[in-house]
Amino acid sequence: MSLQLLHEEPQVLNVGLAAFAESIARAGGKVTQIEWAPPAGGDRAVGLALARLVNHPVVEAANRKAFAAYLAAQPMLQGVGIAREVIPSLRQRLILHAGPPIGWERMCAPVRAAIIGAVMFEGWADDLEGAEKLVERGDVMLAPCHHHGAVGPMAGIISPSMPVWIVREANSGRRTFSNLNEGIGKVLRFGANSPEVLERLRWMATTLYRALEATFVEAGSIDLKPLIAQALHMGDECHNRNVAATALLSKRLLPSMLQSKASREDLAAAVTFIGATDHFCLNIAMAACKAMLDAARDVTGSSMVTAMARNGVEFGIQVSGTGDRWFVAPAPVIDGLYFPGYSPQDAARDLGDSAITETAGLGAFAMAAAPAIVNFVGGSAEDVIATTAAMGHITLGHNTAFTLPSMNFAGTPAGIDVRKVVDSGLQPIINTGIAHREPGIGQIGAGITRAPLACFTQAVVALADMVTEQ
Amino acid sequence: MSLQLLHEEPQVLNVGLAAFAESIARAGGKVTQIEWAPPAGGDRAVGLALARLVNHPVVEAANRKAFAAYLAAQPMLQGVGIAREVIPSLRQRLILHAGPPIGWERMCAPVRAAIIGAVMFEGWADDLEGAEKLVERGDVMLAPCHHHGAVGPMAGIISPSMPVWIVREANSGRRTFSNLNEGIGKVLRFGANSPEVLERLRWMATTLYRALEATFVEAGSIDLKPLIAQALHMGDECHNRNVAATALLSKRLLPSMLQSKASREDLAAAVTFIGATDHFCLNIAMAACKAMLDAARDVTGSSMVTAMARNGVEFGIQVSGTGDRWFVAPAPVIDGLYFPGYSPQDAARDLGDSAITETAGLGAFAMAAAPAIVNFVGGSAEDVIATTAAMGHITLGHNTAFTLPSMNFAGTPAGIDVRKVVDSGLQPIINTGIAHREPGIGQIGAGITRAPLACFTQAVVALADMVTEQ
Repeated sequence: MSLQLLHEEPQVLNVGLAAFAESIARAGGKVTQIEWAPPAGGDRAVGLALARLVNHPVVEAANRKAFAAYLAAQPMLQGVGIAREVIPSLRQRLILHAGPPIGWERMCAPVRAAIIGAVMFEGWADDLEGAEKLVERGDVMLAPCHHHGAVGPMAGIISPSMPVWIVREANSGRRTFSNLNEGIGKVLRFGANSPEVLERLRWMATTLYRALEATFVEAGSIDLKPLIAQALHMGDECHNRNVAATALLSKRLLPSMLQSKASREDLAAAVTFIGATDHFCLNIAMAACKAMLDAARDVTGSSMVTAMARNGVEFGIQVSGTGDRWFVAPAPVIDGLYFPGYSPQDAARDLGDSAITETAGLGAFAMAAAPAIVNFVGGSAEDVIATTAAMGHITLGHNTAFTLPSMNFAGTPAGIDVRKVVDSGLQPIINTGIAHREPGIGQIGAGITRAPLACFTQAVVALADMVTEQ
Repeated sequence: MSLQLLHEEPQVLNVGLAAFAESIARAGGKVTQIEWAPPAGGDRAVGLALARLVNHPVVEAANRKAFAAYLAAQPMLQGVGIAREVIPSLRQRLILHAGPPIGWERMCAPVRAAIIGAVMFEGWADDLEGAEKLVERGDVMLAPCHHHGAVGPMAGIISPSMPVWIVREANSGRRTFSNLNEGIGKVLRFGANSPEVLERLRWMATTLYRALEATFVEAGSIDLKPLIAQALHMGDECHNRNVAATALLSKRLLPSMLQSKASREDLAAAVTFIGATDHFCLNIAMAACKAMLDAARDVTGSSMVTAMARNGVEFGIQVSGTGDRWFVAPAPVIDGLYFPGYSPQDAARDLGDSAITETAGLGAFAMAAAPAIVNFVGGSAEDVIATTAAMGHITLGHNTAFTLPSMNFAGTPAGIDVRKVVDSGLQPIINTGIAHREPGIGQIGAGITRAPLACFTQAVVALADMVTEQ
């Protein structure tokens, strides 16, 4: 085979003898070296299921359809609303949380504390003990954000009175939601629920909400894919680096802010808060990612992952061909850089809906856009390109709406295929913050984690059961 | 020599047989391959001058002092002023222009047209013909920006009534200046002088000036090195990409804008203009670069370059040890990407003071920070890292205040040494916009140019004459 015949640089997945990989790398090819292992650890049932799905025409056609729908999605930021007014189920006494479904009794401490804080914020109880009893008695319903069109970072709490971002996917008209980023310090999403935390939430639901609501009257809706694309050219990967996206959003909103009916005091307070909140745009990017992936949902036979989410106890994925079903495994601990004074012993397990960014081809999948992130999550500048290149082996394609300058403007790898993950043993990589295992302490570091292989093997078996033999 | 003994990755300048370079590159070292040629094209006088300067203890000590002063400089953005009020020489009928000194009769068409526009803007003439006659008669003095502590991109025009940025170097208290960026479209800096151009200049001197002046009353001064450093982590190189720096500056100024006495109408107009002007921060970065380099001026014996500037006819450099003397050579034509409908035949020669960014270790010297720039100036993602690595061979050191994530946080190469340029034949690389050769048409592309070697050979000879034999 002549390399000159290829339109693109060869991408090689080398299994076993490393010398092959080295010779390809020396010739300029991109190589991901993995240790050879039988697919799914040699599990016969999984191997048979995988064999049934590989090259299956129904699966191939379904994946083309799902991936095309993901690529065609147009997430538009419409503005802000109060959760109960835009998510009908929140007219009940319901609190949404991150990750796959989990009962109160099994929840991790930061998520429990955040739920108690939300009960206090809603005024459903007078003190923390009362709030806890209310939830224990079952007088507050709990459900995953993902079951109600929403996503939230870390604990991911959305309660009825909270303001939320509204993203509308232009092709379908479907809306997705996310809570607003609280900034740094003691925050609900890391399980803090002290009076200062609740005070900030109240300020966000009043002053910040008023300023943003008035601004969007003038701003109209904002096309989020070009904004994300530009942020990728400015060193964001839109999961753990959001400083460029936040600055671009601010720049876009500013004239509308000044033309709006919002008071100068509200605007000054709002821009001061946004200016100090480098992750302000993360929640918006997450809602945009959910909108893009929801477009790919429910295509019969498709092996494309439509969600990855963690509740601090379990990691769960959803797959297009299997609808709303979750495939879960224990949430991993995170390999990362810890803030001074903290170590992995202090860390909660992987937590939050923010892995929706990786599911949509951003975050660690777009890490080549963000070499500066290694200061935060560890590794070297070479690693970021290797990570993005490796993820290209487990995806259905690349999203050319999101290009990577350092890889000569290749699109980000996107559309995780559960078959390819199980076949290669290459687990999706996720950039993530690390929460303290105890509530109220907050973020103690950031790092890299990998989606558990068991989620993908279960999905392969379930999907194979649904796909009839040829 | 064991490579393990080196603290840093080896940097190799390979001359001649390419196989040596390939083997070093394969082992992970950074190599710049150049064709061997005798220094200064074999010119005996230059060769002797160079031999006298190389390893000369006075030159070495002077360079340590000059480079340390550059590294220690602290440019602080103080705000805006009207040129005649902050640059005393502009109380006369004087217009400043880019590049080394040049008489009216030898100026290129875009610079002439820009000067005529400035005369009209000042109200010194009623029409373009009258304005031209005034300048021809010598009733308007002309001088380089650099002679009055200032810098300006492209034509670089500063006339008495224009608003200017004021940067104060905190160690010395010395101030440097730049004009304000006019945005895109028909603009004075590309030689346009139609009524709409003058109208925009008047708006900048009134509405925009009022908004910025009121803002800086609240904002105080802004430390520019951290802002530039953060912009480099967000894909700017601060010459032809300034979108991140502009966004970061806006973010920093916003709360002060809203707290200021400026009217809401002025602020809305100002932020709309700034939001549409991605190079708004270029002029500020240029004044900061001049402040850093002025700190290194006038160190007897130093071979460090303190300015590179072009007037569209000649390219000039200044060197620390030779003070305010210019070493000039014909300005080069630019190898670049042309906008549709234009070709190199349409291009003016290299123009503007903006090469002060490269002189200070930004621009093309920091190109590894900005892989997305290849869309604008040409080349590939690999080229940007190779360019920055190559420039490390002709500089006195690296500026660790400005780190490059894609090169594992190495500092930008900075402090161009005229000896190293002449010895290696490696000419400093400059990213630049390309102006049309006819006035009023504007920017027709962007690309890469190299400082002429003749500037550096002249400087070597002049410096050698000043340095006594050991």
